[in-house]
Amino acid sequence: MKKRVGVGIIGSGRIGRIHAENLCRHISGGHVVGIADAVPEFAEQCAEACGILQVFPDHQALLGHPAIDAVIICSSTDTHAAMICDAAAAGKHIFCEKPVALDIQAIDKALEAVAAAGVRLQVGFQRRFDSSFRRAYEAISAGEIGDCHILRITSRDPQPPPIEYIRKSGGIFLDMTIHDFDMARFLVQDEVEEIQAFGDVLIDPAIGDAGDNDTAVCVLKFRRGAFGIIDNSRKSAYGYDQRVEVFGSRGMISVGNKVPNDAVVSDDRGVHHPLPLHFFLERYQDAYREEMQSFLDAVLCDKEPEVTGLDGRAPVLMAHAAMRSLAEKRPVRLSEIAF
Amino acid sequence: MKKRVGVGIIGSGRIGRIHAENLCRHISGGHVVGIADAVPEFAEQCAEACGILQVFPDHQALLGHPAIDAVIICSSTDTHAAMICDAAAAGKHIFCEKPVALDIQAIDKALEAVAAAGVRLQVGFQRRFDSSFRRAYEAISAGEIGDCHILRITSRDPQPPPIEYIRKSGGIFLDMTIHDFDMARFLVQDEVEEIQAFGDVLIDPAIGDAGDNDTAVCVLKFRRGAFGIIDNSRKSAYGYDQRVEVFGSRGMISVGNKVPNDAVVSDDRGVHHPLPLHFFLERYQDAYREEMQSFLDAVLCDKEPEVTGLDGRAPVLMAHAAMRSLAEKRPVRLSEIAF
Amino acid sequence: MKKRVGVGIIGSGRIGRIHAENLCRHISGGHVVGIADAVPEFAEQCAEACGILQVFPDHQALLGHPAIDAVIICSSTDTHAAMICDAAAAGKHIFCEKPVALDIQAIDKALEAVAAAGVRLQVGFQRRFDSSFRRAYEAISAGEIGDCHILRITSRDPQPPPIEYIRKSGGIFLDMTIHDFDMARFLVQDEVEEIQAFGDVLIDPAIGDAGDNDTAVCVLKFRRGAFGIIDNSRKSAYGYDQRVEVFGSRGMISVGNKVPNDAVVSDDRGVHHPLPLHFFLERYQDAYREEMQSFLDAVLCDKEPEVTGLDGRAPVLMAHAAMRSLAEKRPVRLSEIAF
Amino acid sequence: MKKRVGVGIIGSGRIGRIHAENLCRHISGGHVVGIADAVPEFAEQCAEACGILQVFPDHQALLGHPAIDAVIICSSTDTHAAMICDAAAAGKHIFCEKPVALDIQAIDKALEAVAAAGVRLQVGFQRRFDSSFRRAYEAISAGEIGDCHILRITSRDPQPPPIEYIRKSGGIFLDMTIHDFDMARFLVQDEVEEIQAFGDVLIDPAIGDAGDNDTAVCVLKFRRGAFGIIDNSRKSAYGYDQRVEVFGSRGMISVGNKVPNDAVVSDDRGVHHPLPLHFFLERYQDAYREEMQSFLDAVLCDKEPEVTGLDGRAPVLMAHAAMRSLAEKRPVRLSEIAF
Repeated sequence: MKKRVGVGIIGSGRIGRIHAENLCRHISGGHVVGIADAVPEFAEQCAEACGILQVFPDHQALLGHPAIDAVIICSSTDTHAAMICDAAAAGKHIFCEKPVALDIQAIDKALEAVAAAGVRLQVGFQRRFDSSFRRAYEAISAGEIGDCHILRITSRDPQPPPIEYIRKSGGIFLDMTIHDFDMARFLVQDEVEEIQAFGDVLIDPAIGDAGDNDTAVCVLKFRRGAFGIIDNSRKSAYGYDQRVEVFGSRGMISVGNKVPNDAVVSDDRGVHHPLPLHFFLERYQDAYREEMQSFLDAVLCDKEPEVTGLDGRAPVLMAHAAMRSLAEKRPVRLSEIAF
Repeated sequence: MKKRVGVGIIGSGRIGRIHAENLCRHISGGHVVGIADAVPEFAEQCAEACGILQVFPDHQALLGHPAIDAVIICSSTDTHAAMICDAAAAGKHIFCEKPVALDIQAIDKALEAVAAAGVRLQVGFQRRFDSSFRRAYEAISAGEIGDCHILRITSRDPQPPPIEYIRKSGGIFLDMTIHDFDMARFLVQDEVEEIQAFGDVLIDPAIGDAGDNDTAVCVLKFRRGAFGIIDNSRKSAYGYDQRVEVFGSRGMISVGNKVPNDAVVSDDRGVHHPLPLHFFLERYQDAYREEMQSFLDAVLCDKEPEVTGLDGRAPVLMAHAAMRSLAEKRPVRLSEIAF
Repeated sequence: MKKRVGVGIIGSGRIGRIHAENLCRHISGGHVVGIADAVPEFAEQCAEACGILQVFPDHQALLGHPAIDAVIICSSTDTHAAMICDAAAAGKHIFCEKPVALDIQAIDKALEAVAAAGVRLQVGFQRRFDSSFRRAYEAISAGEIGDCHILRITSRDPQPPPIEYIRKSGGIFLDMTIHDFDMARFLVQDEVEEIQAFGDVLIDPAIGDAGDNDTAVCVLKFRRGAFGIIDNSRKSAYGYDQRVEVFGSRGMISVGNKVPNDAVVSDDRGVHHPLPLHFFLERYQDAYREEMQSFLDAVLCDKEPEVTGLDGRAPVLMAHAAMRSLAEKRPVRLSEIAF
Repeated sequence: MKKRVGVGIIGSGRIGRIHAENLCRHISGGHVVGIADAVPEFAEQCAEACGILQVFPDHQALLGHPAIDAVIICSSTDTHAAMICDAAAAGKHIFCEKPVALDIQAIDKALEAVAAAGVRLQVGFQRRFDSSFRRAYEAISAGEIGDCHILRITSRDPQPPPIEYIRKSGGIFLDMTIHDFDMARFLVQDEVEEIQAFGDVLIDPAIGDAGDNDTAVCVLKFRRGAFGIIDNSRKSAYGYDQRVEVFGSRGMISVGNKVPNDAVVSDDRGVHHPLPLHFFLERYQDAYREEMQSFLDAVLCDKEPEVTGLDGRAPVLMAHAAMRSLAEKRPVRLSEIAF
């Protein structure tokens, strides 16, 4: 077993910067060899901020460096699948941000490249590494609540993204609900067979004009019988709302929001608890570190990552089923989309 | 304004007994003149237990008594509509347990009789009088959470009823979800346009053999755009689960379960809070008193009751839409069922 | 065993009225024969409001009525001890509001009269019948938290009483902390040996001018070693604060405040829970009924009441120890006051 | 303003290691030049684990290094005061673990040395940097709860330390309550005038044999009138209990325990919340980083640290007053100990 993984980072946007900082400062077992970005100045800024010694002119140059064992793909979504193919061809282990791609064929091609190269691939569903969701997963695995009957996921953002972003996002199911689709599979530990989706524009007509919805509900049916209910909103007045509840034959596990402190004020108007942590960067700060640590550990120990390529594929399939269900106003089986 | 309402009680089963005790002991403004039951011995037992002086041989005898201003109909569901018609014909004000009837035509006929007689009718949706749901209603009315976007109702029983009961119940939507359908309308303060229902047998195959489901999910679409999600289970290991959450443009209001005490034990295994109150008799003990007080107040003050005949009709319509949706696996508009 | 206890009520002030209503409406096993008050018109008003048939000109007339088995003494504190003696002499069972008297000699004389007459005496420490404190008592009795090490009682009123009341109250320890002294003995299930008291005027100088404190802290030392800490304030901005926590060798039990509903509002300023129930009439509404039911049950079953005469004596002794401790700025043993 | 502070670490025990890791990995603005320890092998191990390049043979060698601007003193308590004097003489800014010394004269001498040298000194009361206590401090500063009337601090350890440690610790007040004394001053933002202490051996007789108590209660009286109550136990079955509550004229702020996750399990036995984080290393993990960041910021910006030398002195004075109070069974004014 190697002692440290040589890491190359591809992409230095918001999420790339987070992974870079975590790899450089908070995580052990890795060593950032260098970074590349489609806009080289961004890579340089990130390198300077994090103390990364080398900036590559492009991802191919990075992939050619022998000290790099693994790459962290944080470039724009439309490049993920091709980057995976290139990295696999270069024999590098791969951590790729979600989604792997917006269409299933591109994902399948990337997964084939990974399999052919025999490298490791982990997909960036960081919520699985949140301590509360992890505790729920373990409680369910241990049978604490028996068989799963009803899953409820509430996932609401504090603010909608810019309309420009929404236009390119692939729609709420591929952009936002995809995390919840992953959480559903992760917690229920079963595959979804059928989805019925509902959606509307209740917050901002401009989102509707961009062809998307800002409020959505999905009902999932799992193979072993459980129902899953996901509700999404692009705008929650009280901030980022990320709760999950799994009801089973022997009990229930509920995950509440994470708060910045445990101080409660009582005055003549009420008893006031703090609002949830602002958004995903705050709520999942520790989870981002845990997922990257887990990836490095998988590479170092030569074991299957905790979030596999198939885990990256399934939620995209679910998003496509949800889109078709919404369009056709009927439940859609995942097998109608792809196998 | 009269000072006291003369009350006659029709039916002395479990719920009739509760109303009798409340009217005789805990509520002011009423005076129980007498009681009748299809099984006269039951009426006698109840009369003795509650100190009711008169037992009528049948409901017609009771309706003929001049000191009775109002009747409380707690007989079996299949008799409700006819009882309403008879009571209206006798010029009595009416409190009737839910559901008014299982079919819409019978309800419409009863409501017409009430209208023709000019008497008051209140339907027994006691949950509206629970202090927590009442607080939610008032917060929403006052605009505290803005426009409603997503309503979530969780309603789970501690134990399924006997199979014999299930066979006659009209099915989970008419028997159990009907309360949640009412709560949805009460809180969102809007009418439902369309329902999609899902159901399965996850708890007891005997329930499936009886032609019913033990686990169900309904997605409602309200006229002004809000989504409603109801999840039901016939068996919750941790007891009666009655929670509601309304998410709006300016905030959220959440109603948690009611507990028997506020004592929390911390030991080496965790921090343990009490289970919810066992079942509806405990959870809604105060609500049953409040609803009856409200009915007496409406009669005394000659004003519209807080839960009207139309409030009794709408959830039955919703249950029928849910049943059709489940059968046909598609969203069903309420206008397909009746107007 | 008799089926119903004939009850006479002495005193029709605020607390007398509560007991009268509870006995007339909410509690079984008793029958209110009549009522007396030093101001007969007050007795008449109460009798009319509650439907009590007989108003006695004075307590002696009431005590002479043969249908009265038990009396409820709710007259002013300075009359309690004499009333107990008279009632005992008349062979009536006695429920007496707290405190039995402000001085120990008067209490001892009353308890002797009760013992000599062989009647039952229950003292009005209603908090023992609150479902949460009762649960704590039972958990401690059952050994759930092991041996008691540290007891904390927080007891704060929403508003100070009128200065006129404070002048006659006997001081904060005899008027307010007395309930907490009782709670301490009840929960720890041991006797207090020594008390150190602290007090100050932090809320209203007029309270200081009246010779009292509005803020107080007592540290108790129990025989088996536990420490007890009581903090009191005459004015809590967020309302009536009645919490208890017992820390033991195996865990802790904490009793929180009772709230009017379980609805929580989240908005852009925070997550807002309801304030506690306003004051003792609301917080202990059910406890008042439970204590009276318990008294009637003790009389009917001829068994020792749950709160005895000695339970009425001990907190008065503790209050005197606290007063001396405060005056002399040192810990005072209860044996210094009386045996 | 310099861009980075050159740091030397003196002491590589448990707490030294934490500061070393934080300085090397999680905090910006500092650069660890080297480390020294009375046992050089310990310094070497720590240096290797954290990637510190230089190990000094002793603290004098470290103090002589020109690239070192500031030292972190984590050596044994009995050396703190002398180390401060040496570091001040060498012109280094100083972060010193608590307590500065067990006796006041030694502290005063160290503070004089610091003043004479014109260097910065921060004392290691990390709890002030916990996000919840910080929020409480800010709420109180902002007047959210008005004037402070009653402060309650509960501070209980999961397990007693080894008897050997207890023997050298200076006693529970200097070893454990000292943190709570600091918290009391920090939150109430006033000085304590008088202390009454209580203590007993309720957990382990061996602690009594070592001349110490394992359970203690202190009542503080602040200059502006507030009362403070601290309760300590060396052994809490449910883990590390670190709660604070400040009650004021306009409201209350309560700080609860920090938990490892927000997952709650409901089953047929209850509703189970997680236990608090295990002990101070877990509970104050972030606080340790914040305090060190704050120290570096103070050095970089040439401003007074947030926890000064006088903040290090006051709790030691309070501990001595508590010890005398316990011995003499009377309230002791701080002015009796020293000015």
